[in-house]
Amino acid sequence: MSDAPATSPPHLPSLDAPPPPRPVLHVCVTCLAGQAAEAGPRPGRVLHDRLAGLLARPDAPAVTLHPAECLAVCLQGCSASIALPGKWSYLLGRLAPEKAEDLLVFAEAYGRSRTGTVMPSRRPASLSDMILGRIPGSGQDVPG
Amino acid sequence: MSDAPATSPPHLPSLDAPPPPRPVLHVCVTCLAGQAAEAGPRPGRVLHDRLAGLLARPDAPAVTLHPAECLAVCLQGCSASIALPGKWSYLLGRLAPEKAEDLLVFAEAYGRSRTGTVMPSRRPASLSDMILGRIPGSGQDVPG
Repeated sequence: MSDAPATSPPHLPSLDAPPPPRPVLHVCVTCLAGQAAEAGPRPGRVLHDRLAGLLARPDAPAVTLHPAECLAVCLQGCSASIALPGKWSYLLGRLAPEKAEDLLVFAEAYGRSRTGTVMPSRRPASLSDMILGRIPGSGQDVPG
Repeated sequence: MSDAPATSPPHLPSLDAPPPPRPVLHVCVTCLAGQAAEAGPRPGRVLHDRLAGLLARPDAPAVTLHPAECLAVCLQGCSASIALPGKWSYLLGRLAPEKAEDLLVFAEAYGRSRTGTVMPSRRPASLSDMILGRIPGSGQDVPG
């Protein structure tokens, strides 16, 4: 006989376990990224909509997407933020619509990380310069 | 006779009312602000400690101060963040120890603001260039 229960071995999640919390990605839809306002859809909106399309796929990563109107990073490409309670929130810039797939790879890694820190070696190369800064969660202690 | 009760007139807070939530100011104590690491106390630590001294005064504004180790804004002076649930969190840079008093003036205005936005005209002049970006609170909708 074994001490282990016949179902729900410890290395597999229980069917009753709540899903892990999903990182929340806010994408600035008003970002112009240097483009004239009248020159067509704003790059920030295009980035947001491309992400929304990717996240609508059946095999999409567990990421929640929200539009935001201005993250006050108007001179550094498209911008976004990513947050999850208990982790560092990150302010991201120097983005572009063609980085949407890579941004979701990063978002998944952020979700799996303990504190929100994703080492540069674990980030897609196109996102090597995107970190503009990080902020502890509201009223929380700094993640360890 | 008046309809108003004899005590707790509506324009005065009740003694039982909870105090308004205090903005949380995280100050990076590892910021070098361009100074060599061996050249004495780090400017970020000096800024933090000056703020702590100001907040220890009896008439100090209602602001909670925490040290933080690196906000990933290492090339833009001393840095800080300010947050309060339900408001935009702000990432702040281009700070210096001598801006401590002004930073508390801003923090008070942030605490009084509805969404966290403090118009440039309401900020001390020394802080005109400090906003690096803003982030919605974790999992919250964007403040209106």
